Amino acid sequence: MISLTGEQIAEMEKQYRISLINSLIGYRSLNLLGTTSNDGITNLCLISSTFHLGANPPLVGLVIRPEREHNDTLRNIKSTGQYTLNNVLPEWYMQAHQTSASYPSGLSEFDACGFKKQYVKDFKAPFVGNSNVRIGLELREVIDMEINGTTIVIGEIVRILTDDSLIAEDGTVDHSKAETMTAAGLDTYFLPQPVGRLAYAKPGIEPHLLKDNTRSLI
Amino acid sequence: MISLTGEQIAEMEKQYRISLINSLIGYRSLNLLGTTSNDGITNLCLISSTFHLGANPPLVGLVIRPEREHNDTLRNIKSTGQYTLNNVLPEWYMQAHQTSASYPSGLSEFDACGFKKQYVKDFKAPFVGNSNVRIGLELREVIDMEINGTTIVIGEIVRILTDDSLIAEDGTVDHSKAETMTAAGLDTYFLPQPVGRLAYAKPGIEPHLLKDNTRSLI
Repeated sequence: MISLTGEQIAEMEKQYRISLINSLIGYRSLNLLGTTSNDGITNLCLISSTFHLGANPPLVGLVIRPEREHNDTLRNIKSTGQYTLNNVLPEWYMQAHQTSASYPSGLSEFDACGFKKQYVKDFKAPFVGNSNVRIGLELREVIDMEINGTTIVIGEIVRILTDDSLIAEDGTVDHSKAETMTAAGLDTYFLPQPVGRLAYAKPGIEPHLLKDNTRSLI
Repeated sequence: MISLTGEQIAEMEKQYRISLINSLIGYRSLNLLGTTSNDGITNLCLISSTFHLGANPPLVGLVIRPEREHNDTLRNIKSTGQYTLNNVLPEWYMQAHQTSASYPSGLSEFDACGFKKQYVKDFKAPFVGNSNVRIGLELREVIDMEINGTTIVIGEIVRILTDDSLIAEDGTVDHSKAETMTAAGLDTYFLPQPVGRLAYAKPGIEPHLLKDNTRSLI
């Protein structure tokens, strides 16, 4: 058993600490974040810090690292007020990873990494045509985190583009059928296998699988 | 293909919308959140809104829903300034789900759901002895979200309790070996299978698997 303290974490070699801390909380939501500048130059980057904030209104948060010279994403979100989140599929996850390369401003990762732009009416930001679960968001709040220079971006879901067959009767997205991937740490990609769908938990009732669990997991 | 607008989402039946919105962003970090009151009454709840905020200092964020009568977690975090995050394993994921049942105040979910409390020196909050990747955090910031009444809690990682064999040479936690689970939506649990570990992305270089990919995925 290892038991590490804050002091020991602070003394770690930088890259070792980055790998450790990035992987501690487990698997993370994995999406391609699509934006456009007001001049129509699109941008695409891989993001694994997306979190559910609430269902009514439908809100999602994500973390953007401190602005660097080539970090166009935050600038685009602020200037257009719109962005998209698109799931990552096994067929092209390597190209999705490639969007994290430091391309020069003016070159779109859509073009550099071979992704298809998809647009819908009255919405500026580009969706990823290659994905099968796509969300369009409008910026609601920007929280500048003084503690480490990152920015938490809160957006409201105003578009959902997906296939009928991927939404279960109760509204849940079937990510297993969609083949949505997940990531842990900085560079390792995974495809989850369903284990069980559980009934709503109540005190005094033993936890149990939903009756239709064997037929379909969602 | 379905294409939904914000208006259509707002008009959905409440439970359908909750299931849909909760599952849109894909797989989520899954942890048991352990706290204690100043009186020593422990609390344990399942949380899937944890996100990575930064590695230096090592910061993690999570979302807590609006305070209800029985929501002791936020009160405990605020009053003691400490909490723990513990990974969920297949052997007992049903008990972990059961912590979301609405137990009366004063009854600890550790006891009600059969979890083993684990304590370390100079740290008040209880870890889950049944987990194999455990993080101890100190509260750094509380952000009250006016937009929907939730609270974003930012904490610094000050303890790590795990097994030596679960940390790879480069510092990455091997969640595949640990058998850490993930969740999508409200009630479905998954065990991810590794697909590939990729090399650091650079412009002009085709994305590729790391050389040691076949030997070990992390």
